[in-house]
Amino acid sequence: MTAFDVTPRNKILRSAKRALYDHDEVYAIVDAAMICHVGYEMDGQPYVMPTLIARDGDTLLLHGSATSRTILHAGAGNPVCITVTHTDGIVLARSVFNHSINYRSAMLYGAGRTITDREEKLAALIRFTEKLLPGRWDDVRPMTPQEFKATGIVAVPIDSASAKVRAGMPIDEPDDVGLPIWGGIIPVRPVFDDPIPDSYVPDDLPVPGYLVEHVERQRERGM
Amino acid sequence: MTAFDVTPRNKILRSAKRALYDHDEVYAIVDAAMICHVGYEMDGQPYVMPTLIARDGDTLLLHGSATSRTILHAGAGNPVCITVTHTDGIVLARSVFNHSINYRSAMLYGAGRTITDREEKLAALIRFTEKLLPGRWDDVRPMTPQEFKATGIVAVPIDSASAKVRAGMPIDEPDDVGLPIWGGIIPVRPVFDDPIPDSYVPDDLPVPGYLVEHVERQRERGM
Repeated sequence: MTAFDVTPRNKILRSAKRALYDHDEVYAIVDAAMICHVGYEMDGQPYVMPTLIARDGDTLLLHGSATSRTILHAGAGNPVCITVTHTDGIVLARSVFNHSINYRSAMLYGAGRTITDREEKLAALIRFTEKLLPGRWDDVRPMTPQEFKATGIVAVPIDSASAKVRAGMPIDEPDDVGLPIWGGIIPVRPVFDDPIPDSYVPDDLPVPGYLVEHVERQRERGM
Repeated sequence: MTAFDVTPRNKILRSAKRALYDHDEVYAIVDAAMICHVGYEMDGQPYVMPTLIARDGDTLLLHGSATSRTILHAGAGNPVCITVTHTDGIVLARSVFNHSINYRSAMLYGAGRTITDREEKLAALIRFTEKLLPGRWDDVRPMTPQEFKATGIVAVPIDSASAKVRAGMPIDEPDDVGLPIWGGIIPVRPVFDDPIPDSYVPDDLPVPGYLVEHVERQRERGM
């Protein structure tokens, strides 16, 4: 298993025992997420923008209107930090101080470029659509040239990254565990509800099999 | 209802019809979230850190180890962007281009200060604990002076903010709605599972009522 080099940029400083640097472990956290938060700075002001995320090997893909500020700025080679977070539970300790949450998060660093090559951009669009819903690309109306042009995709080669995971029960002080206070966790997870058709779906058009399977998979494993 | 002034910093540029600037609407999105993503810049590198969030009127509260990089940097008056995002569903249009997700997000801007006043810090800690689980503060072992000192709280008065919401069904092109393609949404929501006690909870210690109520409330309304 290969790992990211630990440098001042990606080194986990707090609770270092929860740090992960292996590619596979960091990417598993990224791939389980539908959205990320992209951080960048313009004229001295930081911005944090939520957006869809996809991954192609060691490259992250961002997607939006070709004229959006985030896409233009990230695509121009400015440094970004892309963070993905899953909230897995509330951790209830006996002391206020030891309360926490269970989470999996990954912070990834790089500088982006706008994808201009037609084939590369098409492959990225397929990857985004298939990330949102596997099987969807082949079922829907393809892009017109105008729609293709209006869509911006930024590739961010991952220069550095790290992840941090907290899981399991509270860690109380030895003197606290005998107190008559309830300690434990409230697990939290995202669930998909049943798909809801819009008013244009004919009565005889069933929910596609790939959609039913995606909802079932998500319910089995969490998102 | 009062609103944030619209300036270049907080103006929603894309899909402006989905923009919200009213305090009440922005704060409702913040208050429904357990975590936020804090963006800041150090030595030319943006960072986006996930962390717990609480609010006291027009001030956001961040919380962490008193020696954490995020707390020290944010508490020193550097500009931050604090973003909160809820993912509410996958939006499946007939065309690739019109696929989207349903979401509620808020971006808030300000410059923080570390809370040093004892009473103010205690009030902020109560607010954080009660945000995580209403009723918890009075039930648990209070902080020792050492724990109190080791905890850092940063207050970020909100200088500017905006929110963006997408809800409801796909918006297809008029020529697309008659295609034999399923269109609609897959609703997504976070759920709390049943609380799990750790191994130190005695058999005769029930799950506290305020905890049961919190889980029930979350199940009724989503998180």
